[in-house]
Amino acid sequence: MRTVSQIAEAARRAQPSIAAATTETKNRVLIALASLLRTNSGQLIKENARDLTAANEAGLSAAMTDRLRLTDERIEGIAKGVLEIAELHDPVGRMLSTETRPNGLSVGRMQIPLGVIAIIFESRPNVVVDAATLCMKAGNATILKGGKEAHFSNIALAKLIAESLASEGLSTDVVQLLTERSQVHELLQQDETIDLVIPRGGEGLIHYVCQHSRIPVVRHYKGVCHVFIDESADPNMAIEIAVNAKAQRPGVCNAMETLLVHSATAHTLLPMLVAALEKAGVEIRGCEQSQQLVPSIQAATDADWDAEYLDLVLAVRIVRDMEEAIKHIEAHGSLHTEAIVTQNETNAQVFIQRVDSSAVMVNASTRFNDGGQLGLGAEIGISTSKVHAFGPMGINELTSRKFVVMGGGHIRS
Amino acid sequence: MRTVSQIAEAARRAQPSIAAATTETKNRVLIALASLLRTNSGQLIKENARDLTAANEAGLSAAMTDRLRLTDERIEGIAKGVLEIAELHDPVGRMLSTETRPNGLSVGRMQIPLGVIAIIFESRPNVVVDAATLCMKAGNATILKGGKEAHFSNIALAKLIAESLASEGLSTDVVQLLTERSQVHELLQQDETIDLVIPRGGEGLIHYVCQHSRIPVVRHYKGVCHVFIDESADPNMAIEIAVNAKAQRPGVCNAMETLLVHSATAHTLLPMLVAALEKAGVEIRGCEQSQQLVPSIQAATDADWDAEYLDLVLAVRIVRDMEEAIKHIEAHGSLHTEAIVTQNETNAQVFIQRVDSSAVMVNASTRFNDGGQLGLGAEIGISTSKVHAFGPMGINELTSRKFVVMGGGHIRS
Repeated sequence: MRTVSQIAEAARRAQPSIAAATTETKNRVLIALASLLRTNSGQLIKENARDLTAANEAGLSAAMTDRLRLTDERIEGIAKGVLEIAELHDPVGRMLSTETRPNGLSVGRMQIPLGVIAIIFESRPNVVVDAATLCMKAGNATILKGGKEAHFSNIALAKLIAESLASEGLSTDVVQLLTERSQVHELLQQDETIDLVIPRGGEGLIHYVCQHSRIPVVRHYKGVCHVFIDESADPNMAIEIAVNAKAQRPGVCNAMETLLVHSATAHTLLPMLVAALEKAGVEIRGCEQSQQLVPSIQAATDADWDAEYLDLVLAVRIVRDMEEAIKHIEAHGSLHTEAIVTQNETNAQVFIQRVDSSAVMVNASTRFNDGGQLGLGAEIGISTSKVHAFGPMGINELTSRKFVVMGGGHIRS
Repeated sequence: MRTVSQIAEAARRAQPSIAAATTETKNRVLIALASLLRTNSGQLIKENARDLTAANEAGLSAAMTDRLRLTDERIEGIAKGVLEIAELHDPVGRMLSTETRPNGLSVGRMQIPLGVIAIIFESRPNVVVDAATLCMKAGNATILKGGKEAHFSNIALAKLIAESLASEGLSTDVVQLLTERSQVHELLQQDETIDLVIPRGGEGLIHYVCQHSRIPVVRHYKGVCHVFIDESADPNMAIEIAVNAKAQRPGVCNAMETLLVHSATAHTLLPMLVAALEKAGVEIRGCEQSQQLVPSIQAATDADWDAEYLDLVLAVRIVRDMEEAIKHIEAHGSLHTEAIVTQNETNAQVFIQRVDSSAVMVNASTRFNDGGQLGLGAEIGISTSKVHAFGPMGINELTSRKFVVMGGGHIRS
């Protein structure tokens, strides 16, 4: 068995081959993989059943077990996702800009792969395929480490990826899977061979990776997302956006966790907001002032202002004005997604300028912070660090740029 | 005295004020600083003399001492650099793209500051001013740690920066200087408050920072730059570029360190190349084959192929063909700058595609890999990591981007 440093070195050696592969070759790999996923769905479900049995024995929650499960329908969804990546424009080798300098030198910037990307995740087995294929289309090699709960499912999926690479004569070292948690620490030391680490998951994972990695890290961290209902908000729009941001899919990182309501409108609007949210099954924990206005609101504790519930629970706070809303977001937000509902153009602009999140929404649900919704296509996740990429990371965010300089014998004087 | 974490927290608190400062305010700070540098040059030279005395006592080399020295002329150069930064287009708040999605949602990307940037460097005291002002114009707060050799000079320069910030009512915490080496380790732990670390310097510094930093690092590392003279190269152009790349300013990272010559042209061209380089004072260490062609060439050892001489010394190797040249660069290059001299369009394109460096030059000197020369304006240095920025980092590379989404009550279905 290879050591982690051998795995990383193999990825580094294999990466130029995927970087140099034509768009057609990469797309044939993807089409082959989609086909393999479909024809092997029975086998995948069988391997997945081993993980489900272990999950059952370990007493995993129903929600966790559901996330782990592969079905024919879900496998078809993964295959379709792979085919969508085949449709994406190939960024590798694209000239982004070319400029002629006063001395006649032509200076261009060419989009290039990042290199070798390590992805450490805790969630569903589909991430193996989604992440590896998006990275591959951008000319990168990947080393994946998934959660141990999906051990057998991940191995089965990685085997199909290897088969699809081999079918086009590409090295199977372009996508490699680590299966032991004990390998993560050594993985994070391979800064000579790995260019980027993307951890996706909970606080523990992110902190561990940031603490131990010698390789640059782009964090995909939690979303404590806020919606601020301004004084001038259209009441119906405010209610629709609040309900959608909280309840349309509460278990995802771009769902709202805290609702901030301008004090001038709370008196009339808050009871309507709460009624609509409660109707959607949302439990509400609020500040004292909100409890006075709506008796069904439970008392929020300090912890509620920082909570990422990922559930039908919402913190509500009445704020004096937009300034207090912005201060609240500064103190409790996670730089993920924030929205304002307002009819006041100036306030919208101030909110956009001042709020330091990867996506700032005006009169739209926080749920739109998503690569597909924002026009990036497939995404590898949502970065909450500002270095390299901030917000959804699509195929372009998995590349770098080099300078291409064409002269006619130019020398510096 | 503040602890390092208090310094980092103060930078974080102060950063929104510089992020929100208007272009005019930032430019007034820069103009004030240029004026302070000029009127205080006597005092700066006095403080610098204390460093020079210590350098003398410590037996620093003449080259190191020269780099440390501040003169009226050099201070004027620093002041002029600050005024050039005032002239740069302000990137903060600029909308980079706006697109309307099929559902009517307007999706834009706004350029924003990175946040708090720590810069750890070993070189000349002017870096304090150059780095802090470029970061500041891009709306960032900085924490600087320079070499201990420039201790008093750095403090004197930082004092003038603080004065210029205060003159516009901005917090002096926007630019802070660490003065103790022992503070670096703690600085690298402040991932809650610092967004990016830029180490500029030698191997020891870079490795230390990568090993200990919890904060993303963009390395500004060494330049083992190559020029490859292809079979079809114009001989005069080859000689001019080789001499310029090596000898025009040998002590900088974009100077050539290894010359690779195609075997088919070496017989006639190498003697001429060596004669011209030797005339420029260059000592040449070559492979066996090159020694056979030109007896004045000394024998290269294995270490020469990886050496960053930063001096009038050059390694020379005859390669069978371009493929061997590319393999040599893969094995010994530092992803900094590589050039090909060729009249063959196809070879130029293959070299551009295959060579994985921050700048790839065709028929131009490696010395052009420089922010000013490539049209970026002032630069903070040259990144040799692909994450976030690759190559010269100008003002735009000191920013991030957030999504700005404008809806009309849009919700997800």
